[in-house]
Amino acid sequence: MTDHILWQKDHLDLLDQRMLPLEEVRIRLYSAPEVAQAISDLVVRGAPAIGITAAYGLVLAARSGQDLDEAYRRLLSARPTAVNLKWALDRMMRVSRRGGGQVAERLEEEARRIHEEDIALCRAIGASGRRLAPPGCRVMTHCNAGSLATGGYGTALGVIRAAHEEHGSIQVLAGETRPVLQGARLTAWELSREGIDVSLLPDSAAGYLMSRGEIDLVVVGADRVSVSGHVANKIGTYQLAVLAREHGIPFYVAMPRSTIDPGDFDHAVIEERPASEVTHLGEIRLAAEGIGVRNPAFDITPPHLITAFITDAGIVWPPFAPHLGLLVEGEIENA
Amino acid sequence: MTDHILWQKDHLDLLDQRMLPLEEVRIRLYSAPEVAQAISDLVVRGAPAIGITAAYGLVLAARSGQDLDEAYRRLLSARPTAVNLKWALDRMMRVSRRGGGQVAERLEEEARRIHEEDIALCRAIGASGRRLAPPGCRVMTHCNAGSLATGGYGTALGVIRAAHEEHGSIQVLAGETRPVLQGARLTAWELSREGIDVSLLPDSAAGYLMSRGEIDLVVVGADRVSVSGHVANKIGTYQLAVLAREHGIPFYVAMPRSTIDPGDFDHAVIEERPASEVTHLGEIRLAAEGIGVRNPAFDITPPHLITAFITDAGIVWPPFAPHLGLLVEGEIENA
Repeated sequence: MTDHILWQKDHLDLLDQRMLPLEEVRIRLYSAPEVAQAISDLVVRGAPAIGITAAYGLVLAARSGQDLDEAYRRLLSARPTAVNLKWALDRMMRVSRRGGGQVAERLEEEARRIHEEDIALCRAIGASGRRLAPPGCRVMTHCNAGSLATGGYGTALGVIRAAHEEHGSIQVLAGETRPVLQGARLTAWELSREGIDVSLLPDSAAGYLMSRGEIDLVVVGADRVSVSGHVANKIGTYQLAVLAREHGIPFYVAMPRSTIDPGDFDHAVIEERPASEVTHLGEIRLAAEGIGVRNPAFDITPPHLITAFITDAGIVWPPFAPHLGLLVEGEIENA
Repeated sequence: MTDHILWQKDHLDLLDQRMLPLEEVRIRLYSAPEVAQAISDLVVRGAPAIGITAAYGLVLAARSGQDLDEAYRRLLSARPTAVNLKWALDRMMRVSRRGGGQVAERLEEEARRIHEEDIALCRAIGASGRRLAPPGCRVMTHCNAGSLATGGYGTALGVIRAAHEEHGSIQVLAGETRPVLQGARLTAWELSREGIDVSLLPDSAAGYLMSRGEIDLVVVGADRVSVSGHVANKIGTYQLAVLAREHGIPFYVAMPRSTIDPGDFDHAVIEERPASEVTHLGEIRLAAEGIGVRNPAFDITPPHLITAFITDAGIVWPPFAPHLGLLVEGEIENA
């Protein structure tokens, strides 16, 4: 558990993930535009964490009397791919339109509820998935689908955490996740902090370790899942899934039901992020000047490469389409 | 072409590849131990370039009256995986044992010959392979199998250079090649310097670009090739080959015949390099303290994932075993 998102009534207090693992710096945000900027700047990242953060952003807008529709649009545009962002904001807007009491108070209550529900959902994901990670297993993960990506417990790392709590005997192999190095900076940091055995590897070493029989399963998070079982997640997820299948290794995707996008997945936007993420590390230039750069932030993993989805409502095995569709309907009814 | 290895009679003048692309610093080496240290420290890297450099190292030993067997062992131990290192050193030692004139002069002549032959071999590799890279093609490469890895023209990049010289219409996609970033630092630098269109990508984006139909072929170099067609090359090569096959994309390995190891390939040593290459960039810490690290320098790509070998003696198509074996015999006869 990490208290990286702390609501403080008149402001939101965030752990600045860009400074990890070197420094634990916290940032105070007093308005919705500040929250949107923090999301764009990757102060906070990970689909569920972005949703929670944006929800608190709408509370700040309501408290200061800012136009809620304007704040909604500003927050929604902060990151184009994460479906939880829209999900959380839409849920907040529905509450804002209901009657009863002050809008700001209703929104504050709802944002807290989204946050607490996320932690409960992640614990449920962990409870669903821990049996897939038996004692002694060696689990590869990618990026950071951990406490830092969620309300505080993690999706993929929630499964790892739950297995660790149960039997204390799990080895994690964390891909460093270029270009932003979330695996090196965040996953290795949060796991080692809790005494979970973690080794970092270059992204390009995954296939080799699989070929040597050194990886038993892969578990990753998701930014967006279609009802047909297509997964948008951090760049590199797709090729890990191809490699896992080539080596007969189970490939699991862990996510709350809110990550399932009931809409048409063809509209998923793959964001290309700035070239400087690849050519520079901070202020240090790594590559020659004047070259081209490809820096897609996400990729799409098709359902035939996925062994199962680990959700707060249990494990979803193939065929995915009917089951994921039913989960979305359940989610919409609950909302 | 890059004059990165310059023989200056009483010393060897090397371009320090660790400083690229930021600075073009040259280092002067006056003894075999200095040359061995420079090879260990990655001042120069790439199998053919290491062989040439080590050959000049033996010349320096002979000139200073150092025991040649001792210098041989010191140079041979500088990098365990590159077969060209042993190949070049053994060739030099054979010449040292022949009669006629001063040993140092015979060795100097032989080292120059190894160097000039390498440039000619790379041009021959380019001439063999350029027809595989037709106008408009988009070629992915990994690490640096370029002029900087060889005597001055390149193996994989020799093919790209030759295609560029022929039709001037080739797009190169260079994987950055963590952890040492040879793709970012060296390949992008040497291609852009010659006006060849090059875009850099994180290693984990290769599969995604292949799935979008944005890569037409892959060409890489090799540190060691067995007569059965197994390829030891920079970590990440194996998984690129798996991904290429998954997407129906040709995967070529370009190398001179001297890279073929006539011995038993099971003895190939996969070097694990220091953890700090993954956890640090220069002095900057990237990952949490106290974590484990996996940092294998090479991997092995099996022959069934390789479309063809591009050699100085032409293109070798499957079945590889008889043809590669014949090339080694030819090489041994020539030597």
